Amino acid sequence: MPDAEIIAVGSELLTPEKIDTNSLWLTDQLNLLGVEVVRKSIVGDERALLTSTIKTALERSAIVILTGGLGPTEDDVTRDAAAAALGVSQVFHQEICDAIEERFRGFGRKMHEINKRQAYVLEGATVLNNPRGTAPGQWIETPTCVVILLPGPPGELKPLFAKECQARLEARLPKQVIRTRFYRTTGIGESDLDALIAPIYTKYTNPVTTILASPGDVHVHLRARGTTPEEAEALLEEVGPPIVELLGDRIYSFNGDTLEKAVGDALRARGETLSVAESCTGGLLGGRITGVAGSSDYFVGGFQTYTEAMKIQMLGVSKELLETYTAVSEETARAMAEGAREKTGSTWALSVTGYAGPNASDATPVGTVYIGCAGPGVQEVRRVRFPGERERIRSLAVITALDLLRRCLMAAGAKA
Amino acid sequence: MPDAEIIAVGSELLTPEKIDTNSLWLTDQLNLLGVEVVRKSIVGDERALLTSTIKTALERSAIVILTGGLGPTEDDVTRDAAAAALGVSQVFHQEICDAIEERFRGFGRKMHEINKRQAYVLEGATVLNNPRGTAPGQWIETPTCVVILLPGPPGELKPLFAKECQARLEARLPKQVIRTRFYRTTGIGESDLDALIAPIYTKYTNPVTTILASPGDVHVHLRARGTTPEEAEALLEEVGPPIVELLGDRIYSFNGDTLEKAVGDALRARGETLSVAESCTGGLLGGRITGVAGSSDYFVGGFQTYTEAMKIQMLGVSKELLETYTAVSEETARAMAEGAREKTGSTWALSVTGYAGPNASDATPVGTVYIGCAGPGVQEVRRVRFPGERERIRSLAVITALDLLRRCLMAAGAKA
Repeated sequence: MPDAEIIAVGSELLTPEKIDTNSLWLTDQLNLLGVEVVRKSIVGDERALLTSTIKTALERSAIVILTGGLGPTEDDVTRDAAAAALGVSQVFHQEICDAIEERFRGFGRKMHEINKRQAYVLEGATVLNNPRGTAPGQWIETPTCVVILLPGPPGELKPLFAKECQARLEARLPKQVIRTRFYRTTGIGESDLDALIAPIYTKYTNPVTTILASPGDVHVHLRARGTTPEEAEALLEEVGPPIVELLGDRIYSFNGDTLEKAVGDALRARGETLSVAESCTGGLLGGRITGVAGSSDYFVGGFQTYTEAMKIQMLGVSKELLETYTAVSEETARAMAEGAREKTGSTWALSVTGYAGPNASDATPVGTVYIGCAGPGVQEVRRVRFPGERERIRSLAVITALDLLRRCLMAAGAKA
Repeated sequence: MPDAEIIAVGSELLTPEKIDTNSLWLTDQLNLLGVEVVRKSIVGDERALLTSTIKTALERSAIVILTGGLGPTEDDVTRDAAAAALGVSQVFHQEICDAIEERFRGFGRKMHEINKRQAYVLEGATVLNNPRGTAPGQWIETPTCVVILLPGPPGELKPLFAKECQARLEARLPKQVIRTRFYRTTGIGESDLDALIAPIYTKYTNPVTTILASPGDVHVHLRARGTTPEEAEALLEEVGPPIVELLGDRIYSFNGDTLEKAVGDALRARGETLSVAESCTGGLLGGRITGVAGSSDYFVGGFQTYTEAMKIQMLGVSKELLETYTAVSEETARAMAEGAREKTGSTWALSVTGYAGPNASDATPVGTVYIGCAGPGVQEVRRVRFPGERERIRSLAVITALDLLRRCLMAAGAKA
């Protein structure tokens, strides 16, 4: 199977702030075709350096994709550099120029003279039509390589690649079928998960198993190649189920859904509702829940009770309880969840109270968070201590709260 | 001034999910030394490809920084590839091995045999001590280049670079002084801001002006080089003030503070407090405000009123008002802010109600958001229509709410 390299062009991608995100999307698309990306380069708007970068890529990789640098200005050097690297000339295409002119007319504007530069095409290249912008893509074949020039704006690059490149690439690749499985888990760290399932997946090079971790959220990804769909599925069926058995109820999604979407769907299916009472997360839990379109089907609202006075006033937590146990305690988390449930009339309520840092109490260190869940006949509180900085602690608290509700819903479902 | 290249090593950085963020931080540090990054490469754990990538970099750039691949396993190929590219051998350093062993002992564990690989140093290299991890960095000088090997984990890389590399690099560079100014703005788009200040900054190549935009937030960054601090400051003094005058009160921060930090500091300085009432943002506004350490000095809490019933019950918005004007209206936003202020007793209150999508009403399209601010003698509502997807609309609503409060505080300050 041929390898690919991606070269992103643009001086703005060499600043401390800009990230080349196109290559992530392209890598995903190429992986789905069974192609691995072996190198990525980011080069500024410098003709000589870009030319040598392309030349080096052509020596190693059968698929070279360039993104960006197809604009109309002197700074847009991708066409020239690719022509120089390949040793071909460029040809003016009147029909591309006409299309650009037409595009400007459509916006009630006149084409700039410099836009004519975008009508030059490398000798022998196939023009890849770009309905979203002025710069067409280009597809150049050499005896050993395919070179693809794509426009930089993601809104142009993605549809152009999907429409013009995917099928063309597939036709050049050895016949194969890719099938994938996704398991999203929470409540287990990356290295623990790896230790758990490595005895299975390390026995196989096909499917390829990838573990992707972000704080509180670890995804397992299987990708099988076969000559037929049945063959690829059979490979997945050999490796997938034993992994699923080991991961057990840590898996919250088999289809790529986020944790908040999975929990929301469970609530909707049960016809139940949810409210929240947040202290150290200040609204992030509700913010995450309502990030799901249609969350108004089950989320009614909540309380951001950042002070003790607000916990008393909004949620009816008793002053005595706060004095006896402090605001960061199992008792307070329970009272907050019960209070939210009572005040809103929701079926379920989640609460979060803790020290996100930098300040904490003498007895309770930074990172200590109590998470409560109240529901029909249910009163659960989980005490956790998260490592890291303020934002990480708050984010982990949100994930843990969602997972606690997920587990309470599972338990309630089993009982019902 | 010499140029730099950064090579990030690690197969995980060639997956669709992982981003090389080290290079962004390193670029920032290098820019502050006056050094530009001209190319970045990302290579997997492949010795041959990495060796040739390093060789190519050495031909072009005087500073070559490698990140990652210094671990103890066979997959960690940076040491070997750098040695091969430079044509030098590696030497075992007993004192590094002892330090690694000591580190393991500190955790009550025994060093693995494979960790000895981390005690090999390129011939002639300076060892860069890494107190946060087992892999030391390495600094290698050739007649034309400096090659720096840094560990991949950001928590190790950053302190190591700051402590061991910054001064060493500075000593090699032509004597110069860099001085910077930052202006953070909101309420103006990137292209409008550029059109506004381009007549000034395009006249100067020193200072270099960079405009960095994320939705709702545009930063202007000036970077001047001089032979003395006075010279660099004088250059900034020529370009900065005219830009500040044009940007006016769109600037919310001169020191890199976030909008929520700037607003929070203003509240603290006035000894005033804040509450929120959120509908379509579901808690994101409170979440953002409480992302600032010490926000409990001024933030008391808030209400996530996702349904009409909750707006009535929690905030005292009248049923008639909701029936007459709907939940997404100027009147509701005003009543929500007033309700939050009254219920919590805070000096100020912000409210957000709108259609984040995908659903909206017939009369009011997706992206329409009303933002209210209530304070002493103040009742402001802003109607905005944001483009884009749900998350973008919600994020822009949060920024606009913070900016409305900032402007109300400025106006109140001017009156007082």
